[in-house]
Amino acid sequence: MPIRKNDRIQLSHGGGGKEMNVLIHDMFFKAFANPILAAEEDAAQLQLCGTTAFTTDSFTVDPLFFAGGNIGKLAIAGTVNDLAMMGAIPEYLSCSFIIEEGFAITDLQTIVTSMADEMQHCGAHIVCGDTKVVPKGCADGIFINTSGIGQIVKPDISVKNLQHDDVIIVSRDIGRHGAAILMARDSLTLESTLTSDCATLWPIVEQLIASNVDIHAMRDATRGGLSAVLNEWAQASNVGININETAIPVSSEVQGLCELYGFEPFDLANEGTFIIALPRSAADKALEVMAQYCHCNQAAIIGNVTDKNPGKVVLNTPWGSSRYLDIPQGELLPRIC
Amino acid sequence: MPIRKNDRIQLSHGGGGKEMNVLIHDMFFKAFANPILAAEEDAAQLQLCGTTAFTTDSFTVDPLFFAGGNIGKLAIAGTVNDLAMMGAIPEYLSCSFIIEEGFAITDLQTIVTSMADEMQHCGAHIVCGDTKVVPKGCADGIFINTSGIGQIVKPDISVKNLQHDDVIIVSRDIGRHGAAILMARDSLTLESTLTSDCATLWPIVEQLIASNVDIHAMRDATRGGLSAVLNEWAQASNVGININETAIPVSSEVQGLCELYGFEPFDLANEGTFIIALPRSAADKALEVMAQYCHCNQAAIIGNVTDKNPGKVVLNTPWGSSRYLDIPQGELLPRIC
Repeated sequence: MPIRKNDRIQLSHGGGGKEMNVLIHDMFFKAFANPILAAEEDAAQLQLCGTTAFTTDSFTVDPLFFAGGNIGKLAIAGTVNDLAMMGAIPEYLSCSFIIEEGFAITDLQTIVTSMADEMQHCGAHIVCGDTKVVPKGCADGIFINTSGIGQIVKPDISVKNLQHDDVIIVSRDIGRHGAAILMARDSLTLESTLTSDCATLWPIVEQLIASNVDIHAMRDATRGGLSAVLNEWAQASNVGININETAIPVSSEVQGLCELYGFEPFDLANEGTFIIALPRSAADKALEVMAQYCHCNQAAIIGNVTDKNPGKVVLNTPWGSSRYLDIPQGELLPRIC
Repeated sequence: MPIRKNDRIQLSHGGGGKEMNVLIHDMFFKAFANPILAAEEDAAQLQLCGTTAFTTDSFTVDPLFFAGGNIGKLAIAGTVNDLAMMGAIPEYLSCSFIIEEGFAITDLQTIVTSMADEMQHCGAHIVCGDTKVVPKGCADGIFINTSGIGQIVKPDISVKNLQHDDVIIVSRDIGRHGAAILMARDSLTLESTLTSDCATLWPIVEQLIASNVDIHAMRDATRGGLSAVLNEWAQASNVGININETAIPVSSEVQGLCELYGFEPFDLANEGTFIIALPRSAADKALEVMAQYCHCNQAAIIGNVTDKNPGKVVLNTPWGSSRYLDIPQGELLPRIC
């Protein structure tokens, strides 16, 4: 009873018996093949030494497939990026599926293949996993949890490490993931070429580290967008952050969707866009490294750290006025990731 | 806007903004308090050295509260036990919630408190986490993923390590968790005192290791029950396993429920019951250690490893006949864990 393409997930695929074994071996082990996973013990056995980063994320994005990615790509990129942002090599991942009864095997295969493909960008491996199936109506398609482990090779990157006169760099135009999800959910195609920024950031972070760029803080601007990260930094480091609105790259499509829905691009989620705080003297080198990656060809200095307004983010508008950029409140877009 | 007892979870509690921050700080950080978690970086920073076990599990149990536990206790015990079964100290856990909009804050608090309580039994700490909220109807109450990391202090315990003439010990009466869930789901109280075996097994495993018991293989018999573990062992080690049905402890309540529903106790899930394969010469010491723990006061030798029928488990019945005990097939009880 091998897995067949036209099949759908049944409760027995999560039952711990024969059918689950077939799903695990025929699909997951084939896609994620590596010797640690293949050992099939109760837990993966890893050789680790040194300061290690450990992170977790559950992915519930709706819709599961969107322009520029799907829940599988997101589940790898999201957790790998959390490690990368700590200056850690993405090494080992766990992967846990919660699948709704009746989910199409072809869709599951597409998602699993995307996961395997995305791991190629960073060399990470899935070394342990879990599969649960819940009855129809008890989940919405599929949820994926990935946890990640990796050795920290660039220590001292910290939310508490922003320093007076640091500059703030954003890696690319903001708000694409939120806008792409919004577009997919409302079937707003608008003949749009807008895609999510969903991407694994380790290759570029690895180059920044290899180039000895002195990174003080680094974070991917996911839920809550640019606003959430900057506010968290300002509070954790007890500094002020000045941001120049005109310096922030925003695509005309994201800007258009924001105007249509009354959102601000600063609040929209990203899934492959990161922010760095670093000494002004290190900024040119960082931008030079980032320019080698086409998704970062709009990387820009968008502001600086001050000792005024500690704990606050001040946005200087194109009209010469300024206002506090606050952490988002309420629910902008549920199930963005 | 602090969390209030009568509140319900809203989409904004997963939005990455102010409301999520309040939930995380007021509830999760208070219950799970430790310095690594409090650092609030993108990932926890751990100092690790040596062979480390890494495991993951998502918990979707229905109902969320059952006799002897709830999904929170289960989410800690389940992952801690996966580490313990590898001879690893349960050290660091991640915790990721997927919560349905409208879920009662009081229930969430009960679950979180149970998680904190259960960690006391083994000294593990939750060091990183994630919170997602999905719209009403997109999940069934709450799902919890926990991943775990711990140093392996007793190497060479392995599914592939069963040896000819090893004996098989079961730690207690089997099938309680499956039976308790069945009872809770069908509102079968029957004036029953039956509770799930749900428990953290590290304390007893720690004692077995400290007593230098030579453990060849060890596994908790969760989904698929005793049958699934024994079959997996027989196949992975390419040995035969003989089991004597009369030697397997089963409570009269579990036996009764099995007869009522046409289940076999060997197939029912456990969440605090484990099986050891070890040399016959080490069995007395193991049973002596186990006898110190009241939940193991029925621990018993239930069979032995042979070189006959490699890859198969043979069950010797009380009537003098014998049959293959196969891995369960089909769906016995969905959402058991």
